[in-house]
Amino acid sequence: MINLALFGAGRIGSIHGDNVQRHPDANLLALHDPFTDNANRLAQQLGCSQMTPQQIFESKSIDGVLICSATDTHADLIERAVEAGKHVFCEKPIDLSLRRVQQCVTQVSASELKIMVAFNRRFDPNFQTLQRQITAGEIGKIELVSIISKDPSPPPIDYINVSGGLFRDMTIHDFDMARFLLGEDIVSVSAMGTCLVDSAIGEAGDIDTASVLLSTTSGKLAQISNSRRASFGYDQRIEAHGSKGMLIAQNLNENAVVSYNQSGVHSAKPLRFFLERYEAAYRSELDAFVRSLNGENVEIPGMDDGLKALQLAEAALQSLQEGRNINPATLA
Amino acid sequence: MINLALFGAGRIGSIHGDNVQRHPDANLLALHDPFTDNANRLAQQLGCSQMTPQQIFESKSIDGVLICSATDTHADLIERAVEAGKHVFCEKPIDLSLRRVQQCVTQVSASELKIMVAFNRRFDPNFQTLQRQITAGEIGKIELVSIISKDPSPPPIDYINVSGGLFRDMTIHDFDMARFLLGEDIVSVSAMGTCLVDSAIGEAGDIDTASVLLSTTSGKLAQISNSRRASFGYDQRIEAHGSKGMLIAQNLNENAVVSYNQSGVHSAKPLRFFLERYEAAYRSELDAFVRSLNGENVEIPGMDDGLKALQLAEAALQSLQEGRNINPATLA
Amino acid sequence: MINLALFGAGRIGSIHGDNVQRHPDANLLALHDPFTDNANRLAQQLGCSQMTPQQIFESKSIDGVLICSATDTHADLIERAVEAGKHVFCEKPIDLSLRRVQQCVTQVSASELKIMVAFNRRFDPNFQTLQRQITAGEIGKIELVSIISKDPSPPPIDYINVSGGLFRDMTIHDFDMARFLLGEDIVSVSAMGTCLVDSAIGEAGDIDTASVLLSTTSGKLAQISNSRRASFGYDQRIEAHGSKGMLIAQNLNENAVVSYNQSGVHSAKPLRFFLERYEAAYRSELDAFVRSLNGENVEIPGMDDGLKALQLAEAALQSLQEGRNINPATLA
Amino acid sequence: MINLALFGAGRIGSIHGDNVQRHPDANLLALHDPFTDNANRLAQQLGCSQMTPQQIFESKSIDGVLICSATDTHADLIERAVEAGKHVFCEKPIDLSLRRVQQCVTQVSASELKIMVAFNRRFDPNFQTLQRQITAGEIGKIELVSIISKDPSPPPIDYINVSGGLFRDMTIHDFDMARFLLGEDIVSVSAMGTCLVDSAIGEAGDIDTASVLLSTTSGKLAQISNSRRASFGYDQRIEAHGSKGMLIAQNLNENAVVSYNQSGVHSAKPLRFFLERYEAAYRSELDAFVRSLNGENVEIPGMDDGLKALQLAEAALQSLQEGRNINPATLA
Repeated sequence: MINLALFGAGRIGSIHGDNVQRHPDANLLALHDPFTDNANRLAQQLGCSQMTPQQIFESKSIDGVLICSATDTHADLIERAVEAGKHVFCEKPIDLSLRRVQQCVTQVSASELKIMVAFNRRFDPNFQTLQRQITAGEIGKIELVSIISKDPSPPPIDYINVSGGLFRDMTIHDFDMARFLLGEDIVSVSAMGTCLVDSAIGEAGDIDTASVLLSTTSGKLAQISNSRRASFGYDQRIEAHGSKGMLIAQNLNENAVVSYNQSGVHSAKPLRFFLERYEAAYRSELDAFVRSLNGENVEIPGMDDGLKALQLAEAALQSLQEGRNINPATLA
Repeated sequence: MINLALFGAGRIGSIHGDNVQRHPDANLLALHDPFTDNANRLAQQLGCSQMTPQQIFESKSIDGVLICSATDTHADLIERAVEAGKHVFCEKPIDLSLRRVQQCVTQVSASELKIMVAFNRRFDPNFQTLQRQITAGEIGKIELVSIISKDPSPPPIDYINVSGGLFRDMTIHDFDMARFLLGEDIVSVSAMGTCLVDSAIGEAGDIDTASVLLSTTSGKLAQISNSRRASFGYDQRIEAHGSKGMLIAQNLNENAVVSYNQSGVHSAKPLRFFLERYEAAYRSELDAFVRSLNGENVEIPGMDDGLKALQLAEAALQSLQEGRNINPATLA
Repeated sequence: MINLALFGAGRIGSIHGDNVQRHPDANLLALHDPFTDNANRLAQQLGCSQMTPQQIFESKSIDGVLICSATDTHADLIERAVEAGKHVFCEKPIDLSLRRVQQCVTQVSASELKIMVAFNRRFDPNFQTLQRQITAGEIGKIELVSIISKDPSPPPIDYINVSGGLFRDMTIHDFDMARFLLGEDIVSVSAMGTCLVDSAIGEAGDIDTASVLLSTTSGKLAQISNSRRASFGYDQRIEAHGSKGMLIAQNLNENAVVSYNQSGVHSAKPLRFFLERYEAAYRSELDAFVRSLNGENVEIPGMDDGLKALQLAEAALQSLQEGRNINPATLA
Repeated sequence: MINLALFGAGRIGSIHGDNVQRHPDANLLALHDPFTDNANRLAQQLGCSQMTPQQIFESKSIDGVLICSATDTHADLIERAVEAGKHVFCEKPIDLSLRRVQQCVTQVSASELKIMVAFNRRFDPNFQTLQRQITAGEIGKIELVSIISKDPSPPPIDYINVSGGLFRDMTIHDFDMARFLLGEDIVSVSAMGTCLVDSAIGEAGDIDTASVLLSTTSGKLAQISNSRRASFGYDQRIEAHGSKGMLIAQNLNENAVVSYNQSGVHSAKPLRFFLERYEAAYRSELDAFVRSLNGENVEIPGMDDGLKALQLAEAALQSLQEGRNINPATLA
C-alpha cells in the first residue's frame, strides 16, 4: 500500500485525493491547505487527517506527495519533497518562470525518486490509443500532428492575471502532447495570437485565440489551435497524419442519441469541460504514479517534460512578440 | 443510510454489491450465497458480513434485500422479504413460470414496500435520454420502435438449458424496453425464430436468432431483432420513429479514435458485453432503488412490469409455435 | 446503338427517357403518352418523335421499349412488346392483380427477349456495394436483414386509391430487396400494419405504417419497417447481419457540413425523396438494361422477380387480415 | 445561348468543355490546342470545331473563352481575349510570376468584361454551404479557420519542376479559400514546410508537407495543412470556428456502407482525387460563369482574387526561407 499526502485542497486536489482513496493500492494519509475551510472540508470528505508541510515531510509513513497547491509553491515543494525522500506527483506547470524551473530541475536531477509532472492528457484513453497506434507504426512515419484544444468559456479575469498567459497556462498541455506524439525535439516555434473572445483578456496583456506551428529536428510538423471559448463545449481533438494513414481522436460526447427532424439531424455536444472529459485520464495518471512507485515499469512524464513544455510556451510568446520563428533551445 | 443485504454472490450480485458500497447513502450489511467460496470471496471483497436468509429477514438493521440468486429462488425470496417487511430489488426474471409469477404478484400486491424488478436497461443513460425525449414530445406521437439486441456470443449450452429459452432469457429485456418506450399495452405478438448460430442450441429446443413484432392497443408497432452472436460486440441499439421525427440510440464504442488508411476508415467496435455496456445503468438502477427507499419520487419497474414482460415472452413462444399472432392478455 | 421507345411521359418516364438520351450507347427514337400535353412536352425536351403504340411495335428500328405508363397498362404492353419482338424494361408492378401477373409471366415465359422489371433499388450504388459484400462472404452467412423504408410524406389520397395499398405499392420494393439480399425463397410472411399518419388513408381501406417479418427456407429472417411519413426525409437504410459481421447502408444526406453550437451538433437531413436518393440508381438500371441488350452478362431483375415480390405483398396483406403467418407459395 | 471557345484540350480543359456542352444555356463552338492529338480527340468527343487563336479572337460568334492551356500562356491569352472583347474563364494561376500577374491585372483592370479565375473549390456545394452559414451568422463572428488539403499522392517530378512549388501550385487553393471564408485582408503569413514524402521533391527544391498560419487585419486566424500524400485518398476538409459555434465540412466518401466485424467498424475512404471530389464544383463554377455572362448577379472570383492568392503563396515562400512572418502587401 502506497501512502500519500496531498498539498492543495482545491478542485484538482480533490480529484486526485479522491482517486487515491478509490485506488486499491494507495491511501491518502494526510492533506494540507493553508485555506482552512477547503482543508477541513476535503479532509472530512476523503476521510484523512491534516498535517503541516513539515509533518508531512517528516512522516516516516508517507511515501509520496501530490502537489496540487498554488503554482508558485510547486518548485519549492518539489525540492523539499525530494530532500525529504518523498516521491512527487506535481500538477503542471512546475513554475511560470523558466529560470525557476531550470533551477528546480537541476536541484532534483540527481535524485532517484519518482517525480511525475501531471500532464493528464497523456493518460486519456483515446489519446493513449492514438499514441500507441503511432508507436506501433499503424500510420507509418508520423509527419504532421494537429491538436485542437479549446475551452468552453474563458476563466475569470482574476485567473487570467495569475495564469502566466494562454501559452503557459493552456497551450502548455498541447506543447506536451505534441512532444509526446512526435517523439522528437522541437526546434522551431511560430505563433500567432489574438484577443477575440473577451477584450478584458487583451487589456490584461493576454490573448484568447491562438495558432502555433512547431517543427522537429527531422522536419515533422505540428499545429495547435486554441480558443478560450467554444460555445458547444470542450473541444479536444487530435489528428496525426503519417506516411501510411491518419488517426483522429474525436471528441467525447454527452450521449449517443441522435435526433432526426425537419430541421436536420442532431446529436449531443462534446463533454462540457475537463472534469468530465478527462475523468478517466485523471484516474489513469494517478494509477500510473502508484504503479510506478510500486516498481512497475510505467512511462510517466517527468521534470524534463515540464521544462520542455514551458520552453515551448516561452518560445511561442517570443515568436508572437517578434513575428519570427524561435528555437526553444536558445531559451535554455 | 439505507442498509441492504444481498442474496447471490455471482457476477451480477457482485456488481450490485459493489455499487451499494460505492453509494454514499447505502451500505451492504450482509450477503448470503449457498456456494461458500463465492460467498467468502465477495464478503471479503466488499467488506461485509455473511448471514443466513433467516438472519437477514429477522435483522432489524436491514431495510431491503437485493435478490441476485438463482432464478428459481426469486419468487420465494420476494415473498419472504415482503413478509419480513423488507424492500426488494430483484433481478429479472421473477420466475420462468408465468403461473408462479402471477402467484407471487398476487401475494405481494397489497404491500406498500418498494419492490423493484431490475430491468437495468431502463436506467442506461442513453436509453433514458431517448425515453425522456419521447415523453417530452420531441418526435411527436411515437409510432414505431425498433430494438436491436444481440449478444457477442452464445452462452454455454448448460446455461441455455436452464435459461427458459431466448424469449424468456434475452428478449425479455427488449419486451420490457418496448413497453417502457411505447407507454401502452401490447395486444398482439408475432415471432419468428430460428437456430442459425449453434446447432447445439437447436438440439436443446431453443432458438438463437429471432425477430418479433408487437402492436399496441392504438396500433403502435415495435420490432425486436435478436441474435446470440454478433461477431463485432454487443449490439444494443434503439430506434423510435414518431410523427415529428426519429431518435436513434447508437452503440457505445471502445474508443473514439478513427484510423484512415488505404483499406478504408476504421473505428472501434461496440463495447464487448453487458458488464461494460451497462456499467452506468447498473449504478443508476441501484441509485434509483436507494433514492426510492429514501422517499424520493423515482420511477422504478415493479412486479407488474416483470409479469408483463414474461407474458410477452410466453406470447412470442406461442406465436413461434403456432405461426399466428398472440394477444398476451389471453395468457393471463 | 440501342434504339428505344418510351410509353408514358410522366415523372418516371421522363427520368428514364432522359437517361436514355444521356447514355452513349442508347437512343430514344419515340415516345407515346395518351395525355397529349405530357407527350408533347417530353418529346420536345428529349428531342424525340411521337408514335402510336402500333407504330412503335411495328417499327423495325426500335429494339426495345420502356414501359412507364399507368400500372394497368403494363401487362398488356409487355405482352404486345414481346409479341412484336421488342425487349422490355417495365416499371414495377407488372400488375396489381396477382392472377394477371401470373398470366403475363406465362405468356412471355418462352421468349428469349430481355424483360426487365425495374426494381431500381437493386441498382443503388450503396445497396449494390452491400449486396456484393454479402456475396463475397464478408459477413459470413447472412442471417438477418433489416430494411427501413419510409417516405417523407404520404401521397395524395387519389393516388392511395389506385395504388393497390401500401404492401403492393411501397413495400414491394422492400420485398424485392429482401429477396435480392437473402438469396433464398421466402416461405413465411407475418405483417402488422396500422393507420397512424393520416386517417383518410385508413378510411380508404389502407394502412400507412407497417412492420413485416419474413423467413426463408433455411430459417434466415428479414424485417421491414415502413411509414408513409418521415418528417426528416426519405429514410432508406438496410442492415444485414451475418455470422461474421454486419453491414449497414446508411442514408445519403443533403450535405457533409456539421454545425456545432450551444444546442448540440447538427448535420444535414437525408435526401428528400426518391428522385434525389435514387438518381444514380435510375442511371445505373437503365445502363444495365442497355448493356444487357448489347449482349453483356448483366444481372437484371425479371418477370419472376416481379411476380415473387407481388406474391409477398399479397401474403403480407393476407397475414395482416388473418393475424397469422402466410406462405406466399400457397397464393400461387 | 452563350457561345464559348476553349484553349487547352488536356484533362481540365476536357472537364470544362464537357460541362459547357451539358449546360442548357451554353455551347462550345471551338477549341484550340497546339498538341494536335489532344485537340482532335477532344473536338470529336465534344462535337465542336477547331480554330486557331486568331480565329477564336476574331470570331463574332464567340462570347467568351475558357483558358485551360499551359500556365505560362494564361496571362497572354487573358490580355488578348480582353482586347478582343471576349469574356474570360481562366484556370488558376494567372501566372507563376507575381510581377506578370500584376501587369496582367493592370492591363485588364479597366475592362467591363467578366474575367473569372477558376478557383473551383469556392463552388463545391459543401464549402458553399459552409460559407453561406458563416455569412448568415450561424457561428457568430468567425475567428479561426482550419483548412486541411492533402493530395492522395505526389505528382510526377516533371510536373513538380514546372509547378512553381507547393505554395503556388497546391496551397494557392487554400489561400483563396481562407480569403473566401475570412472575408478580410490577410496581413501576416508564417509557413513551415518540409520534404517528407519523396526526396526527389526536395532535390527539386520543393517541399511536400507544409503548415501555414495566416492572420487578418482584425486578428482572425487561419491555418492550412498540406501534404502531397494521403494514403487514404483526397483529404479536403474545412473547419470554421466562430464566437457562437463551429462548422466542419467533412470529406465525401466513396459510399455510405459501414461494415462491422471482429477487427472493428469499417467505412469507405474519401473520394480518390479532385476529378471525383470536385465534379459538382466544376459543373457549378462553369454554370456561375455562364449565368454571369447572362447578366445574373453571381459572385465569381476575379483577377484580384488570383493576384491575392499568389501574393499569399509568395509570402509563404518568403516566410519559409526567412523564418519570419511576412505581410503579403509588402510584396506588391
